[in-house]
Amino acid sequence: MEEPLKRIALFLVAVITVAGIVAFTPRAFGHSDEEASPIASPIYGVTIPAGYRDWQLIAVKQLHFAGRGEQLRAQVGNDIAIKAFKEGTRPFPDGAIIAAIHWTREASDDNDKVLDVPFPGTHSFVVGSRVNVQFMVKDSKKYASTGGWGFADFTDKKPGDKALHETCFPCHIPAKDHDYVFTRYAP
Amino acid sequence: MEEPLKRIALFLVAVITVAGIVAFTPRAFGHSDEEASPIASPIYGVTIPAGYRDWQLIAVKQLHFAGRGEQLRAQVGNDIAIKAFKEGTRPFPDGAIIAAIHWTREASDDNDKVLDVPFPGTHSFVVGSRVNVQFMVKDSKKYASTGGWGFADFTDKKPGDKALHETCFPCHIPAKDHDYVFTRYAP
Repeated sequence: MEEPLKRIALFLVAVITVAGIVAFTPRAFGHSDEEASPIASPIYGVTIPAGYRDWQLIAVKQLHFAGRGEQLRAQVGNDIAIKAFKEGTRPFPDGAIIAAIHWTREASDDNDKVLDVPFPGTHSFVVGSRVNVQFMVKDSKKYASTGGWGFADFTDKKPGDKALHETCFPCHIPAKDHDYVFTRYAP
Repeated sequence: MEEPLKRIALFLVAVITVAGIVAFTPRAFGHSDEEASPIASPIYGVTIPAGYRDWQLIAVKQLHFAGRGEQLRAQVGNDIAIKAFKEGTRPFPDGAIIAAIHWTREASDDNDKVLDVPFPGTHSFVVGSRVNVQFMVKDSKKYASTGGWGFADFTDKKPGDKALHETCFPCHIPAKDHDYVFTRYAP
């Protein structure tokens, strides 16, 4: 092979190798800016809002999900939602967004070892991997037929299908007295 | 009684006393601005930082606290702490503060009723009342003898006693490889 061609070939191999390493290297932890996604949820057209992982904490939950294990969950909100929670404003004003982040729950042997000395029999559970993230977006005109809320459920940045999103609003109807929001602001 | 046993007994008495006070003190709802407190923790002199309830979320935990029920917990951090978590900076830079907010765990009949239709046998747990809040404040010079961290444990805005605060650093030593911090940033 000609010398320049050899060099180009070697260069391309190097580029492809680096690209491959980048593509298949698990991403560094929690860079929320990368989580914004242009793929919208069916029915509601809700996309993942940039930076939501950095929003303020509303509350924490635990779910014993029958047949699907245990989950730890956190609800966070954008500034409009947090202000409404703190001031008790209902219905939530347009622009409010609530995000519910769901993780698997894992036992922490490291924590248990430490806790067991002063408190025998105590067990600590931490978050494992991300399961999904759900959003409620308030737009009283656009989503007038669903209590003013648009819904979205993303797994690994991909929205669930139409059938899944058809279940969102009916499930939230029992919380009508709290503007269809189950979560209360944690003290 | 042996000295170590005495210390454990005294510690437990302190904890039970504090728990009793907590259990019978009514609490106002999450107005973070009111939570700043000038009363400093013993040993370390750490006060409640203003606005910590609005800090960004690090992670969520659940604790089966033997003999004292279940807790849901959230760890939040100031901007310096969050940046260090995201970028994997260890040791944490001076000025980093981590807050651990602990609540009682309560079953949510309202949530269960809704969840039981599509997912029979599923149970939801929400936060009840605030139990306590703990802080770790990084100051590598001021707290050089305790890994660069100052500790504080507040119940209803009052710091625990000296005996309680003597237990903070020894318990964190097993996490020395993570700069004495057990909590990992949730994905």
